[in-house]
Parts: sequence; structure tokens; C-alpha cells
Amino acid sequence: MPAPPRPVRRATATAETRLIERIARRFARAAAASDRSLVLGVGDDAAILRPRSGEDWVISADFSLEGVHFLSAALPPQAIGFHALARAASDLGAMGARPEFFLLSLALPPGRDGRWLDRMLEGMARAAGALRLRLVGGDTTRSPKLVLAITVLGRIARGRALRRDGARPSDALYVSGRLGAAALGLTLILGRARRRPSRSRGLGKSQERRLLRPQLYPSIPLDLGIHLAERRLPSAMIDLSDGLSSDLARLARSSGVGARIYLDRLPLARVPASLARLGIDPLELALHGGEDYGLLFSVPASRAAEVPSSFRGTPITHIGEIVPGRRLLAVDIAGRARPLAPAGWDPFRPRRRK
Amino acid sequence: MPAPPRPVRRATATAETRLIERIARRFARAAAASDRSLVLGVGDDAAILRPRSGEDWVISADFSLEGVHFLSAALPPQAIGFHALARAASDLGAMGARPEFFLLSLALPPGRDGRWLDRMLEGMARAAGALRLRLVGGDTTRSPKLVLAITVLGRIARGRALRRDGARPSDALYVSGRLGAAALGLTLILGRARRRPSRSRGLGKSQERRLLRPQLYPSIPLDLGIHLAERRLPSAMIDLSDGLSSDLARLARSSGVGARIYLDRLPLARVPASLARLGIDPLELALHGGEDYGLLFSVPASRAAEVPSSFRGTPITHIGEIVPGRRLLAVDIAGRARPLAPAGWDPFRPRRRK
Repeated sequence: MPAPPRPVRRATATAETRLIERIARRFARAAAASDRSLVLGVGDDAAILRPRSGEDWVISADFSLEGVHFLSAALPPQAIGFHALARAASDLGAMGARPEFFLLSLALPPGRDGRWLDRMLEGMARAAGALRLRLVGGDTTRSPKLVLAITVLGRIARGRALRRDGARPSDALYVSGRLGAAALGLTLILGRARRRPSRSRGLGKSQERRLLRPQLYPSIPLDLGIHLAERRLPSAMIDLSDGLSSDLARLARSSGVGARIYLDRLPLARVPASLARLGIDPLELALHGGEDYGLLFSVPASRAAEVPSSFRGTPITHIGEIVPGRRLLAVDIAGRARPLAPAGWDPFRPRRRK
Repeated sequence: MPAPPRPVRRATATAETRLIERIARRFARAAAASDRSLVLGVGDDAAILRPRSGEDWVISADFSLEGVHFLSAALPPQAIGFHALARAASDLGAMGARPEFFLLSLALPPGRDGRWLDRMLEGMARAAGALRLRLVGGDTTRSPKLVLAITVLGRIARGRALRRDGARPSDALYVSGRLGAAALGLTLILGRARRRPSRSRGLGKSQERRLLRPQLYPSIPLDLGIHLAERRLPSAMIDLSDGLSSDLARLARSSGVGARIYLDRLPLARVPASLARLGIDPLELALHGGEDYGLLFSVPASRAAEVPSSFRGTPITHIGEIVPGRRLLAVDIAGRARPLAPAGWDPFRPRRRK
């Protein structure tokens, strides 16, 4: 005779089921109005989505790991949640698509499932609200370190997605926004985390908050990407997630071309004098600092006149051009061209920090 | 005058770009024939997919973490890759959908980027080939522990996806395959990892290989799920990933019903006598052992006669029925009904092991 099953008091939900329901509730409050594209969201084996005719779907996955992408001790939990989702959505913005749905896979260390989790989800729900993204699924588990793995799914009119591989020699190169602002914020955060308050000495509280904001709560120019894709202006586009030098290298490599940028044209983030005196160099931040999430795109010279100088308050700057060959060159103020190496964020290279 | 950029020898790909290209090449060899649904795969900011009219898209995300879901020291790298993708695909099979595309986000510890990675990808490519899945994107980073985060995307005729929440009282309950075979394999692996060779004493080499197989290289009954969805037979369906007791609790909870199963009907995995003597109990494995990836589904009593007793060699077993209320009951051979608790795999509860 088989042994009886373990005695228990009642059929109950597993701890994992309760956690999933808690996460789903958090985002239900943040969700946009109902959309017939979403047939079934969180809670089943998979979500069910219903495409409309005449559209392409665009999908991307993005990691945010504690100790690799962020130092959780140095950051408010809200910023960790906000940044992780904004960063994932930026990949779709880089195609000119509208991100609409996301899946959140969350591995939680012990002690992070209470108030800390609520605050992290609160920040992520704020990003979901701002970017109009709906949670439709994911996975949850425990882990020694926090892991966020986010998949974002979006849509665009058929054939209109902007790729990295279409840049051609003589195309003009543009960036949106200012470069290095997020890296400047990171420098302040790391200075604080390493108890080097000299890094923020001389800054007022509201000034410091303003300098941290691009790093903690980055703004993603989704509407600009959509605008450019609708007009089919760019020949290639990418988002600036790892730093201009690295992301330009990716765009050029995908397109099989080289590029030349002019250092005196770069729209540098303003570094307060008190920080500049400590050796924080705006050009260094602009070239190799990541997480600005602006758009880098090339436009055929014949259509360059159609590129606006700003879009809804965000500057758009002509920084250089695509050239034949494979080389990346940076031209300094004296007109000297030097090779530009991809020296932005690369998880497989130990990160240099000042 | 701005400082010149760092001098380097040549514009080169980042280490991350090279790794992504290496992964993409591995799966390019495993990819199916071209399909007009895939417009753009790995290598850009996002993949571009083109839906056909009249279909729904089904999407799910799944974690496999070293030390949580698997012990990498105890497993061949090929099995880690195979199992992770099979497990993710199983969630779509549970909806009756055909999984077609996947995104692989991979966080690699130091020293795992060489031969180990090749073997892990080889196993995953074997699963991709068997399940006809194409890699279309993902993310890569370093990490102290191996993390695999897989998103699987599939398709099904509009409105045909099978959910968890449709079971109604008097529906008959079925499982496909045998229960506990994967947990038996895991028991052997853990015994070996803990240097308790007694666990495999008395087993021949080929017998041991056969017993390990359901754990290392699980078979996913995608065709059965698709068959059932096409016929609209099940009122609710789920895959057995965490164990019958836990997955039945999920199906019942989603549907707002209870369930009664008969222990003497369960299709138990065969446990060799030498292992049974060590106290390995087939019923315990069947009730609470995870990773069998069979299907658990309910069918209205009026259509029960249409359920085949096997499908392409896989047994389909009538194990009980849906009942009113919320309780889960297990009826033993003497006819005594006792409460059945969800005691399968739950990442947020410390796992009991013998």
C-alpha cells in the first residue's frame, strides 16, 4: 500500500505564487487602460498577446545584476527598479518602436522580499507608468545576489524598425540629449559609497539631486525614436547605453563602416566647477560614460536638413559622419584625428574607475 | 582644449560583442529553415518578428540559476543548457502553443567562458534543434554565479491557448507521462555529488544513464499540447514543472476549484529494487518531485471519452477529478481521502532532501 501523503492543514498557495500575485498587484495599479492586444497577463504558464495586422513586433532582453550593473547599497531601491525597466525599454526605443509589454524575472536575496522589494517595485511601477508599459509575466526565485532579467516587447508599423546596420559613408551622425550626465551622477554615487564626500563638497542639496537624477531615473526618448522611424530619417540607430565610444563602435561594425566625430561638437553634460577641480573631465564622461540612453543615429546627407535641432526640449546634435573603412576617429579642436577605442561599459572587461 | 581620447591601436569589437557573436554562431547552426516571421535576429538592439494574421502570440520567461535550480558541479554542462531551454519551452507547451523563438540572457562566472560555455551551448542547441526553437536575442554579462534567463515566444491559432483557470467541478483530471522519473534522476545525481555512491550501487552503467536521462535531458510533450489545444479538449492545463502536488494546487487555485486524486492511479516512475531498499519512495517522487514536464489537464466529463490513453507512445492517465470547494484531496488505496499539500519545488521554501 502506498504511503499516505504528508499531512497538512489546508491546500494553500506556494510562497512563490503569493510573491507573483503581490508583484502583479503592484503593476496592476500602474497599468494603462485596457488594450485588446493583451489577452492574458500574469499568472498562467505564459501570457497571451494578440497582434494587429500590418505591424512588426520587436523584442529585447536585458539584465540588471547587483554588483555588476549596480551597487544596491549605494542606491535607493526605487532607482534600481526604475533604471532597470527604463534601460530595457531603451533598446526598443533604439529601433523606433513603442515598447508596450514587459516580463520581469526577479531573483531575490534573503531579506529583500519585504519593504525593500516594495520600494524597488514602486520605482519600477513609476517607470512603467511613465513609459506606458504593462507587466505580462516573468519568473521569481531566490538568489544570493539580486538579479533582474527584463524582456520588453513592443510594436511598430511593418518594415519601419530602425536597425544598426544601415549606415553608409557620408551619412551624418547625430546624438540626442547631453552626453555624460548619467556617468557624472554615477561618479557622485560611487564617491559617496566609498566615503569620499569630497566628491560632493561644494554642491547644494538640490544641485546634487539634480546631478544624480540622470543616473537614478533616466529619461528615455521613446517619442523621438518613434518620430524618426515614422519619417524613415535614420539609416541606422542605436541607444547610448554603454557610452558613445562603445555604441558608435557597435553601429559602425554592424554597418561595415567607419566613423569620424568632432570632439568640440559633443553636447557635454555640465560639470560644476567644484567637481571639475577634482579631475572629473566632461569629455571623458561624454565619450566613455554609459547610461545616458540618448539616441545615436546616422542620416543620409541628402536628408540631413530634415533633422531638427531639438525635439520636445531635447537637443539633437550633429557630431560627425560615417566614413568608408572600419576606423573610428575622434577629431580634436586643433583638427587632429586620432583613433577612438570603444572604452565604455563592457561587462567582460574590468571597469576602470577613477 | 579638451583632452585627447585614450590612444589605442584600432577600433575593435568589445569583449561582449565577440561573445554575442559566438553564441549567435552556435545557434545559427542549430536554426531551422528560414521563416518569414523572423525579420531580424541576434545582434541589434532588439529582434524584429512579423506576426501572421489570425494568430495569438504566447510568451513566457524562465530562470535557471546555479545553486538554486541546479548544481553545476554535479551536472554535465550540456545538460544544464538542454534542461534550461526545455524547461522554458515547457511553459508554452502548457498553453498548447508551439514555441518558436527564444532570447537567452546569460550571466557567466569567471572561467566559464571557454570550453565549459561551448559545451553548455552545445546542449542548449541540441534542445533548440529538437524543439525547433530559434535564438533571436538576449543579453550577456559576467556574474559570480551562472544565471540563465530565457524568454520563449510562440504562436497558436487565435483564441485557442489553454489556460489554468477553466477547470470546473466534475471535470476529469489527466497527466501525461510518468511521474517522478526526473526526481529519481535528481536523487541519484545528488547522492553522487554528496559522495554517497550507495545511491547508485547495484545499478549497471546503462541502467544508471537511463535513470538520469529524464532529469538531464527532459522530453517536452509539445505535440501533445498542440493536439489537445487544436481539439479544445482541456478546460484547463498546466505543465508539471514543480511537482504534481504544487502544480495541481496552482491549477485548482486559478480555477477556483478543488481536486481529488487517487494515489493508486498515479503513473509512477519505476524505482529499481536496489534504490527502493534505500528508502526512495516512488509515490513521494510522483507527488512532490518536479521537472517531469508532463501535462496536467482537466477535461469536461462529457468529453472524457475523447481523451486517448496514450499519444505517440506517451501514456495519458486519468488520475482524479475536479471537485467543488478549494480542497485538494488524495485518496489512498483503502479509500481514505486526506488533504494534499503543495510540497513540490518552491524556491522560497528551503528544500527538504532526504
